[in-house]
Amino acid sequence: MPEYSIGVDLGGTNLRAAAVDHNGKVLDRVSGSTQMTAGRDAVTSDIVASIVKLRADRPSDHLAGIGIGVPGFIIIEKGIISMSPNLHFFENYPIRDEIERLLQTPVILENDANVAALGEKWIGAGRDVDDLVLLTLGTGVGGGIISGGKVLHGFVGMAGELGHMTVVPGGNPCNCGNDGCLEKHASATAITAWARMLGLGDNLSSKEIYELAIGGNQRARVCFEKMGEALGMALASLVNIFNFPLYLLSGGVLGAWDLFTPPMFEVLKKRSLTFRRTETRIDKATLGSDAGLYGAAYLPFQARIIKA
Amino acid sequence: MPEYSIGVDLGGTNLRAAAVDHNGKVLDRVSGSTQMTAGRDAVTSDIVASIVKLRADRPSDHLAGIGIGVPGFIIIEKGIISMSPNLHFFENYPIRDEIERLLQTPVILENDANVAALGEKWIGAGRDVDDLVLLTLGTGVGGGIISGGKVLHGFVGMAGELGHMTVVPGGNPCNCGNDGCLEKHASATAITAWARMLGLGDNLSSKEIYELAIGGNQRARVCFEKMGEALGMALASLVNIFNFPLYLLSGGVLGAWDLFTPPMFEVLKKRSLTFRRTETRIDKATLGSDAGLYGAAYLPFQARIIKA
Repeated sequence: MPEYSIGVDLGGTNLRAAAVDHNGKVLDRVSGSTQMTAGRDAVTSDIVASIVKLRADRPSDHLAGIGIGVPGFIIIEKGIISMSPNLHFFENYPIRDEIERLLQTPVILENDANVAALGEKWIGAGRDVDDLVLLTLGTGVGGGIISGGKVLHGFVGMAGELGHMTVVPGGNPCNCGNDGCLEKHASATAITAWARMLGLGDNLSSKEIYELAIGGNQRARVCFEKMGEALGMALASLVNIFNFPLYLLSGGVLGAWDLFTPPMFEVLKKRSLTFRRTETRIDKATLGSDAGLYGAAYLPFQARIIKA
Repeated sequence: MPEYSIGVDLGGTNLRAAAVDHNGKVLDRVSGSTQMTAGRDAVTSDIVASIVKLRADRPSDHLAGIGIGVPGFIIIEKGIISMSPNLHFFENYPIRDEIERLLQTPVILENDANVAALGEKWIGAGRDVDDLVLLTLGTGVGGGIISGGKVLHGFVGMAGELGHMTVVPGGNPCNCGNDGCLEKHASATAITAWARMLGLGDNLSSKEIYELAIGGNQRARVCFEKMGEALGMALASLVNIFNFPLYLLSGGVLGAWDLFTPPMFEVLKKRSLTFRRTETRIDKATLGSDAGLYGAAYLPFQARIIKA
């Protein structure tokens, strides 16, 4: 009997799910918006409905399990979300057990940046390594660490909070209580904040700032240089700490790779002897916004490998 | 037949070795100085002689293997030291194979900070956890990371270079090519450098500065406060990255715990939401300068567990 897995990517905006086979081939997918205002039961119903739909289309195949990526901290053993700024109503609710009960199929919860890193490791830019760090550069900065082929969780599921590494002591204030966090200096939000500070304009999107920079605007270029320097600082520490072979960057800001990477590599070279002495790769993630979907789908397959 | 293992701690100054049983009990030990000027063959002979002596005293016991902790980067699979500022003559020399050949017993090489971390995990302050980070605060700052009970090596044995995390951008220059490295701001060397800068005296030892601080000298107290702030910065990033349950500090500077930890915890609390929200422990290592000896002795026992 052909076998497949279902990956679910639950975001604050979109809810997406896909049926994926052992080789990482997407067999079918569904997507919709997350009904944030309708509350917990409505969102749970939507998750269940999307899985039911995918399963109904493959009545003769075997479902290995369901993986769900969510933004927040996960207590893996309990299958609960201990903290989620975007999905408050799911905090400390037994969402894994509830979905398992409704569908009679094993469910694994995982943090969204972690599943993205796992997806890249499975069939993306990291498929030839067992150890990698992924930095997701979006409105914030998320992180996922794959060590020995598996997600590094930490003791209460909070490992990989790379967006809150301090890269500019005394820098931009962060709502985590710190200042100078990576995500306040190397995200789309950071780019627009720099544009405001440099007098480029108060309502420019990071894409508009990118176009100005490409067109030769020096202040717009500075926005991306500052981002590169902050990223270089964080990467230097990560390279010194992990000595992993691969560090991946993903997110919408990747389009500006040519603008932010020269200062990033300059800082990285200066601040990491390990980087200078080894063949460490800093590269683009390749699965785009599907990374989390793939990683979530891989969870049930991997759980079986680890058990065996 | 009773079984034991031999751990060797090869430093730039001292060469120590011990016969240790399964429970971490030291059965016998030898120590001497490392004959740096006599060169590679003399030091190799001394290592071999110390092992032979320990083995000769237990003719009826079974030797499980030999673990050797050395200052430098280790290519584990090859059993060579790829880089060692203190033991240049051992770089790229097949030291493991050579000692195995001379003694006809399996040998495992490991980095000195890594064996210290492993020793603490085995029978020291980390014996109740599987994941910990150790910072050794001496003339420099070393680091060892234990993840899932095992040393995290990285892909060319350079993981755990925590002394070179940047904690003060634009700070003290380091011979690694960076500035503001942790080891230039949170070591015995850093303490004496601060004392010079603050006009306390050019030739004070860190112990003398400690005594001045204890006696109420404000400038001497500042030296330890600066050290605490730098440590707090590094620990905050480490806690955010790993979410491990335990971070250990070791080394001679530990005697000044009461002086440097208040600012350390202050910075750590401010800069790590994870620290504020979890029961993360920052603690003193308990094995002192024997940690590496224990960890080295544990290597052969652990290798067998991992294989089985």
